Amino acid sequence: MNQKINVGFVGGGQLGRMLAEACKKLDVSCLAIGEDASSASKYCEMFPPTNEGVNKFLDSIDVFTFESEHEGLELVDQVNEHKIPIRPPSDFVETAGDRFLEKSMLQRLDIPVAPYELLDINLNGNDLEKKINDLFTNNELSTHGIVIKTRHGGYDGKGQWVLTKDKDHDFESLANEISKVIVEPGCIVEGLVDFSIECSILATRAINGDMKVWPLAHNIHEDSILRFSYAPMSDISNVEELSEQALVIAKKICDENNYVGTIGVECFVTENGLVVNEIAPRVHNSGHWTIEGSVTSQFEQHVRAISGLELGSTESKGYSAMINVIGRDIDIDAISALENTYVHWYDKEVKPVRKVGHITVVGLDELDRANKVQLVLALLDQSHS
Amino acid sequence: MNQKINVGFVGGGQLGRMLAEACKKLDVSCLAIGEDASSASKYCEMFPPTNEGVNKFLDSIDVFTFESEHEGLELVDQVNEHKIPIRPPSDFVETAGDRFLEKSMLQRLDIPVAPYELLDINLNGNDLEKKINDLFTNNELSTHGIVIKTRHGGYDGKGQWVLTKDKDHDFESLANEISKVIVEPGCIVEGLVDFSIECSILATRAINGDMKVWPLAHNIHEDSILRFSYAPMSDISNVEELSEQALVIAKKICDENNYVGTIGVECFVTENGLVVNEIAPRVHNSGHWTIEGSVTSQFEQHVRAISGLELGSTESKGYSAMINVIGRDIDIDAISALENTYVHWYDKEVKPVRKVGHITVVGLDELDRANKVQLVLALLDQSHS
Repeated sequence: MNQKINVGFVGGGQLGRMLAEACKKLDVSCLAIGEDASSASKYCEMFPPTNEGVNKFLDSIDVFTFESEHEGLELVDQVNEHKIPIRPPSDFVETAGDRFLEKSMLQRLDIPVAPYELLDINLNGNDLEKKINDLFTNNELSTHGIVIKTRHGGYDGKGQWVLTKDKDHDFESLANEISKVIVEPGCIVEGLVDFSIECSILATRAINGDMKVWPLAHNIHEDSILRFSYAPMSDISNVEELSEQALVIAKKICDENNYVGTIGVECFVTENGLVVNEIAPRVHNSGHWTIEGSVTSQFEQHVRAISGLELGSTESKGYSAMINVIGRDIDIDAISALENTYVHWYDKEVKPVRKVGHITVVGLDELDRANKVQLVLALLDQSHS
Repeated sequence: MNQKINVGFVGGGQLGRMLAEACKKLDVSCLAIGEDASSASKYCEMFPPTNEGVNKFLDSIDVFTFESEHEGLELVDQVNEHKIPIRPPSDFVETAGDRFLEKSMLQRLDIPVAPYELLDINLNGNDLEKKINDLFTNNELSTHGIVIKTRHGGYDGKGQWVLTKDKDHDFESLANEISKVIVEPGCIVEGLVDFSIECSILATRAINGDMKVWPLAHNIHEDSILRFSYAPMSDISNVEELSEQALVIAKKICDENNYVGTIGVECFVTENGLVVNEIAPRVHNSGHWTIEGSVTSQFEQHVRAISGLELGSTESKGYSAMINVIGRDIDIDAISALENTYVHWYDKEVKPVRKVGHITVVGLDELDRANKVQLVLALLDQSHS
């Protein structure tokens, strides 16, 4: 009789929770370091972030993975001392968590990215102005402007400043703000890419190098936070061509970095095809639709990959759309009552701009999907005004 | 040679502006009392709200109409003294601007409405609690709760309190709030209607009694503000049956009140068909799609009706959706560049929760419409996170 595999990570958000649910389905044990009251705690064994907790955790797990590129790296040395495999590789996770290292890696692999440069955070207003104006006249870096981003963190549009060429900017106060907000290792400046839409590549690589990809997801943001993912994408672009390019990109990134697990690659769709925006070395919000919309979910596939199990089929069950629920309560019963509509509620406290759940609809075809999205949106706000 | 007809109203918002544009198309003159810097002022002659301004205005117009049910009624006596026809009738506009009078009128006409009662605004916490609890046990009034609404004003969810049966309520502070916020003539309490979606009937009645209706629009709100209208509605409900009922409702309301002009009737779709929520005695946000999506727009039709011109065809040019732009700037050029996509920008200062523009897409079929909406939403937020 085989012994149960024990998967461990640091964190306790909704990604961890859905990973834990997938573990349960596969009869794999899930352990995490984090708060007992977290979103994940409903489905996995939680260990407190104390010396004792961490030691117990390390004594129990067979493979270490990541819920986020910003948590867990601090444990890597200890995990290595325990000779526990880390999947995906921690150096890749570190790279993906730093916009400068990430872009450098992609560039080395000849994968299209926005032009970028390191930016010294200690520039004063005048120096910053000179630097930015130099960039504005450097056509290779940008078409209509630039965006300053922290190297670490700053997801959902936080810690970012967009400057367009056609506007005047107050460089003095910008320099002040940057030096206040940005911490080491500093920030980068990127050229703004002219794109039509955003999409993401979702793929999983197994230990033996096998790879499975899902169809491209079309991502729609509101206020810089993901609001909708449609997968397979509607035929609103040259999807076939983009999908071929996506496969090449995903394979290159994963093979060259000996990646194991699920990966999300956010891309801009431009006139010249895909340009990679950023990499999530983990399961990704734009892949939540796979839970009901695909034969194998991104979560199950990740657990399969890191546990050495065979990868499942990534065939779609229909035309799915995922709608994030952000900073609000919803009528779960009313929405769940809709046909082929699935509510995931993360049991987190509702706060402004916080992702507290998501809803997936699986349509028979593109139109059925669109109608289902319309119905969900209608139910999300039954106003009596 | 015919003399040019002069149409006048009070107000200067986007509805007035689009009415003025329609006037221009029909070679009708448009005059309004309001701020010179208003949204409407681009297309119509503005008169200041001074004695002199009003007199000049009244000396110039041939027919008086309304941009809103909350403006213009104060001029009715003067308009009558000048023997200028008022279309639609001012007593109807007054009725529609008072939720109690409006519901009473609908009830007299045997048109389904939510159960309702007048509510004394001077009740103390105990009395309010008793009153509300009486209503909660009165099944005819409500299924799962009640909503308190001001009789006047309070659009977009303002001045409203929803109380569901299953929750505890602080009646003391509610009574306080109500007595602070609500002014004469007070408020009503309505039963919450169990509905699936919201839609609106849009129709125009001519002086000779001719009526034209547009296909039903499916309305989706966000935070109680209209966000999307889809017309013709997707086949997500028994549209044919509802449309027949809509025609009967519109005809009854207009004929019985000798209505002239365009009217919007917001409805809930329930298991027993349409239940009227409220009436807009004017052009309505959910009819903006008609500008590009119909042979005749709601604005042109209104001007035709009140000017005694023959009504135009309300045939649809395709499958339209209107997306309101609320409290934000947008990239007008990028969105306008999409096929069959039309941006209306109201030239108002951008403020939170303020409607500052709308976008209409006209699709060849339902799927084309859904894809176009998806593209517009994608362009509305090109995040570089």
